[in-house]
Amino acid sequence: MKQFAVIGLGRFGSSVARTLARMGYDVLAVDTNEERVNAITDEVTYAVCVDAMDEQALKSLGLRNFDVVIVAIGQDVQSSILVTVMLKEMGVPRVVSKAVTELHGKVLQRVGADMVVFPERDMGVRLAHALVSRNIVDQINLSPDYSIIELIAPREFVGKTLQESAMRREYGVTVLAIRRGEDIVISPGAKQVINEGDILVVVGRNDKLRSLEDKL
Amino acid sequence: MKQFAVIGLGRFGSSVARTLARMGYDVLAVDTNEERVNAITDEVTYAVCVDAMDEQALKSLGLRNFDVVIVAIGQDVQSSILVTVMLKEMGVPRVVSKAVTELHGKVLQRVGADMVVFPERDMGVRLAHALVSRNIVDQINLSPDYSIIELIAPREFVGKTLQESAMRREYGVTVLAIRRGEDIVISPGAKQVINEGDILVVVGRNDKLRSLEDKL
Ligand SMILES: Nc1ncnc2c1ncn2[C@@H]1O[C@H](COP(=O)(O)OP(=O)(O)OP(=O)(O)O)[C@@H](O)[C@H]1O
Ligand SMILES: Nc1ncnc2c1ncn2[C@@H]1O[C@H](COP(=O)(O)OP(=O)(O)OP(=O)(O)O)[C@@H](O)[C@H]1O
Ligand SMILES: [Ca+2]
Ligand SMILES: [Ca+2]
Ligand SMILES: [Ca+2]
Ligand SMILES: [Ca+2]
Repeated sequence: MKQFAVIGLGRFGSSVARTLARMGYDVLAVDTNEERVNAITDEVTYAVCVDAMDEQALKSLGLRNFDVVIVAIGQDVQSSILVTVMLKEMGVPRVVSKAVTELHGKVLQRVGADMVVFPERDMGVRLAHALVSRNIVDQINLSPDYSIIELIAPREFVGKTLQESAMRREYGVTVLAIRRGEDIVISPGAKQVINEGDILVVVGRNDKLRSLEDKL
Repeated sequence: MKQFAVIGLGRFGSSVARTLARMGYDVLAVDTNEERVNAITDEVTYAVCVDAMDEQALKSLGLRNFDVVIVAIGQDVQSSILVTVMLKEMGVPRVVSKAVTELHGKVLQRVGADMVVFPERDMGVRLAHALVSRNIVDQINLSPDYSIIELIAPREFVGKTLQESAMRREYGVTVLAIRRGEDIVISPGAKQVINEGDILVVVGRNDKLRSLEDKL
């Protein structure tokens, strides 16, 4: 079973720690702020009030034996960088560090972070995309040219079969699955009727998907 | 063309504003902090230094005519709530507000926010999932029971056909597509050979997908 430690229990760090613990993993949660440590203690394996900038205290946590340590210190850029350096020097196999600016991210990468994350920036990008395309529920970018999108069934397709909807013929896209409440129809046939409220899982070229979406 | 306004230019708000502007939309960016306004002014349609808590100043922005206003004020929970209320009272059709805790989120919903977002919490959940399943590149949760996952082709399947991999027979999952660099094979046949470095797009029950993943 993998062991994780999270240093910094702000909104991001505490969410990472809670989610890993709920999935059944061992999680050590660390913060200088006693209130934040107390708030999470019942939800993780172990929660301690430690200043990660204190090298002795950090060493005493035995983090070398953990699989992944997440550094979720935000505002205090200097601490985030120094703690990342100390963890790598201690031999932690995988250090994932949160960055607040692009420059901060570059420095973290330079000093040895194995992965750098930008939670606010990335969620900002996601929200912008979601706001612009209100009919797209979720998507996977397969390549620069192809995507899978989850699309609320366009009104004009409701009551038609897939064949009648002409999605393949006119847009060159393929319906991989239909989500209908809790049910899923996988690889639906040409005679499958589209119901109101169906979510279509569609694969195709991005430009074709966009023109399908624009038509809605 | 849709018009957007973003109030609060922290890491999240500025990312939303920048992304929308890059996509070609009209974006008005608002903050009390002059430095943050100046930093974004060249990247958005219009950036102004205004305290959104000042009702007269807020009204003078003419936000009623915008399609979506995003309230990305974080720490100051009271402002975030009051600004959301004022925007709805002014007749803004869609107000999307950032919440810092579950309770804050509930209050925002109560006072009329059309959508409440939790960027740090949600990215925390995403990172936790990504750290645990390193072979999963991306995923769509179709329902509580079904997902589509993008999976790095397991070593033991390389050189085999889909039929020989027995993914359908043993795991009950279906390979919807294979991503091979920039190319995509959609609805691959049983005779399709899996190459090293292929990314498989697989749909199936979550428990089956998990046991497929565990085997890797
Ligand atoms: N040296 C340190 N050792 C341990 N914890 C620390 C240290 N420095 C900062 N922290 C903790 O890191 C946490 C996150 O920091 P901060 O709130 O500044 O980041 P943030 O990016 O605004 O967080 P978020 O947006 O995720 O809420 C805080 O709870 C803080 O107490
Ligand atoms: N009344 C207001 N009017 C305009 N802007 C405001 C107002 N109150 C706060 N802001 C701005 O909102 C921005 C975001 O607030 P804050 O930094 O507290 O949130 P945050 O959640 O920590 O941000 P992030 O994590 O996205 O960096 C700040 O730039 C702040 O100046
Ligand atoms: Ca505990
Ligand atoms: Ca903050
Ligand atoms: Ca934040
Ligand atoms: Ca400008």
